[in-house]
Amino acid sequence: MRLSRYFMPTLKDNPSEAEIVSHRLMLRAGMVRQSSAGIYSWLPLGYKVMRKIEQIVREEQDAAGCQEMLMPTIQPADLWRESGRYDDYGQEMLRITDRRERDMLYGPTNEEQITQIFRDSVRSYRELPKLLYHIQWKFRDEVRPRFGVMRGREFLMKDSYSFDVDKDGARRSYNKMFVAYLRTFARMGLQAIPMQADTGPIGGDMSHEFIILADTGESEVYCHPDLLTFDSFNADVDFEGDLQPIVDKWTSLYAAADEKHDPGNCPVPADQLITRRGIEVGHIFYFGDKYSKPMDAKVTMADGSEVFVEMGSYGIGVSRLVGGIIEASHDENGIVWPASVSPYDVGLINLKAGDDACASACDGFFSQMKAAGLDVLYDDTDERAGAKFANMDLIGLPWQLIAGPRGLKNGVVELKNRASGEREELSFESALSKLTA
Amino acid sequence: MRLSRYFMPTLKDNPSEAEIVSHRLMLRAGMVRQSSAGIYSWLPLGYKVMRKIEQIVREEQDAAGCQEMLMPTIQPADLWRESGRYDDYGQEMLRITDRRERDMLYGPTNEEQITQIFRDSVRSYRELPKLLYHIQWKFRDEVRPRFGVMRGREFLMKDSYSFDVDKDGARRSYNKMFVAYLRTFARMGLQAIPMQADTGPIGGDMSHEFIILADTGESEVYCHPDLLTFDSFNADVDFEGDLQPIVDKWTSLYAAADEKHDPGNCPVPADQLITRRGIEVGHIFYFGDKYSKPMDAKVTMADGSEVFVEMGSYGIGVSRLVGGIIEASHDENGIVWPASVSPYDVGLINLKAGDDACASACDGFFSQMKAAGLDVLYDDTDERAGAKFANMDLIGLPWQLIAGPRGLKNGVVELKNRASGEREELSFESALSKLTA
Repeated sequence: MRLSRYFMPTLKDNPSEAEIVSHRLMLRAGMVRQSSAGIYSWLPLGYKVMRKIEQIVREEQDAAGCQEMLMPTIQPADLWRESGRYDDYGQEMLRITDRRERDMLYGPTNEEQITQIFRDSVRSYRELPKLLYHIQWKFRDEVRPRFGVMRGREFLMKDSYSFDVDKDGARRSYNKMFVAYLRTFARMGLQAIPMQADTGPIGGDMSHEFIILADTGESEVYCHPDLLTFDSFNADVDFEGDLQPIVDKWTSLYAAADEKHDPGNCPVPADQLITRRGIEVGHIFYFGDKYSKPMDAKVTMADGSEVFVEMGSYGIGVSRLVGGIIEASHDENGIVWPASVSPYDVGLINLKAGDDACASACDGFFSQMKAAGLDVLYDDTDERAGAKFANMDLIGLPWQLIAGPRGLKNGVVELKNRASGEREELSFESALSKLTA
Repeated sequence: MRLSRYFMPTLKDNPSEAEIVSHRLMLRAGMVRQSSAGIYSWLPLGYKVMRKIEQIVREEQDAAGCQEMLMPTIQPADLWRESGRYDDYGQEMLRITDRRERDMLYGPTNEEQITQIFRDSVRSYRELPKLLYHIQWKFRDEVRPRFGVMRGREFLMKDSYSFDVDKDGARRSYNKMFVAYLRTFARMGLQAIPMQADTGPIGGDMSHEFIILADTGESEVYCHPDLLTFDSFNADVDFEGDLQPIVDKWTSLYAAADEKHDPGNCPVPADQLITRRGIEVGHIFYFGDKYSKPMDAKVTMADGSEVFVEMGSYGIGVSRLVGGIIEASHDENGIVWPASVSPYDVGLINLKAGDDACASACDGFFSQMKAAGLDVLYDDTDERAGAKFANMDLIGLPWQLIAGPRGLKNGVVELKNRASGEREELSFESALSKLTA
């Protein structure tokens, strides 16, 4: 993509409304624009990142045997009356009346809807287990939307739902999602730590939040020091095999966020306990027959008996992750994208767009890089060099390939690594083979 | 995908609520389930088709130089008050009041929103032309939602918006979308005919509906007989070149849908005029400064003067196309998917799941077909053969590879072409090379 044609309205100054660094950088880099409080339009650069995150989430859900579908955003209130949550949910639910005076709502979550679909279609234990997911926009009418896309009102989530005939099956489904989540976040370059979370009246140990560490995180988290030494988990996995050892390893050491942590009852001595800031990016939760019972979702077993299905739900905040990754990976000059979610693989900077020889060399580099399979953002504008450097640092692509008349005369370009700041002079061919290695 | 694990709840009987064939077949094939009037959940099989359609639309928009972004579903009413459409829109607009008593709405379209984004970001003629698009859920509170996903309330659309400094530029943008639409529908196996459409107070010739012919179509369409002999257009195109000859060719012969057609004023003699039923799947529209003027979206020209930008909008009904393609391509046994949008490339039928040798041969075929890059739906269930045939015909994959003990003894499988009904006995290897040719 040529920057001269790209719709990427960057801002030179820090927008005053942005309280946190990811919000500030997303506005400055032209990734999003606010539409109204807590509701954003995603401009091309930001949308490209979100789609990459979405695709990683999708691939890992598919690998775990979860099947993709899509439920609508607008749900009938009657469905929520069946579960009893319509009155309980409070003002965060965006309630709507349609032209025929029917009560509707913009889904804040989808347990009721998936339970309805399940009970209308599945009759026999033989059809279980089932793991279904969708990636859809949700709405929570937060009283104080803030932190940009981190706590918006309209937000994109992946949620999965599992259906099993008994608790052993439910645990196997839970473990699949646990391991899929470890892999998902590792692929995004994140160290996400599973932390104990509230199970409410269900009890047990099957509720975990996945939290990434960032100094600017929203909540305080507490964990055993050794947990920070674990390598992030991205091994190949047989999802039909026994995943319990992986789950056991990652839950063997204490980790909890502030609403769960109890200083008086913590197994890690206070002088060893690590305290950090963190951002929740996923939550997995087993809730048994909480919905299947009131909504009558049951299957017939081999012996003719009927059982309410055991369910769990598993969420990942897709739009929130765009901000979360920036919180975890930036410096004073801007964003530092992990390669897997970077909007482009590399930025090509023509230092002197007015110089015909330099422009034509850069056009050639652009073609060759694209032909080699690289996704390139090519700064072909006539901005001055300093502004181009600052801009490219701001948007945070992993590599910058910089070409100017002086270097070209000597047959070299400059290759800059955004994360380390290291620069190297080398031939274009060497740079290209480095980038495609 | 093994059918035994797949969430594809087919129906044996025709659902009484379905008036048209696509609705009937989508319910029977387990592609969708109604959530409430005009609002559907997309089950895995249906969602897979919709995503293929969406991806074709995306690729052709990108090829035409249109940049993808995403605007939210919920918009502030104030934006629509600026254009004057908030009061005009009527009851089809789903109006919402949030917890702070602000007037909001679920976007039925996005002209206001994109105009706001443009005017807040673009200042100079040098940044034009710009073509931006998004693929997003919309809501129109139809008084009588019906025909399944063909006239739903919540529906997925691609819409693009063009911004140019003058009418010549606007025509170039219009032509890009015109040609992109020809290519888009051709890739889906559809013959879509551009037909004159109302331009309202704008006047001129820059409004076309793209209509596919189907006996069950919603509207009557009229056209010159020779138009039906045109090959659908899918040639490679230089979108920066002159597209007028292509547009001229496709608009040289009369074609109009009923709301535009005037029998008293038709250039085609009545005895030659073709009358058919059709389904609108796209609409492109130039509207000049209809929004840029009231919303003050202007750019500064080289001479310092300011001009309101010339805009157009270009829609494709993505979820509607799922139904539209079925209307145009089905027979008495079910759906007949064009290969490019088929949920799977081929269905593999094990005629006798209880037979170990047959099951193990089929498992091997499944692995080999996947390894060859085919996306396979493998009926490994223990249903009887007749039910499997009917089911596979119903869901309409282009090919069926059928294996049973008798054929395997002779070293052959059967390959069936869904569209023609032709069956052929051949070795598995020959079948595989035919499928991957």
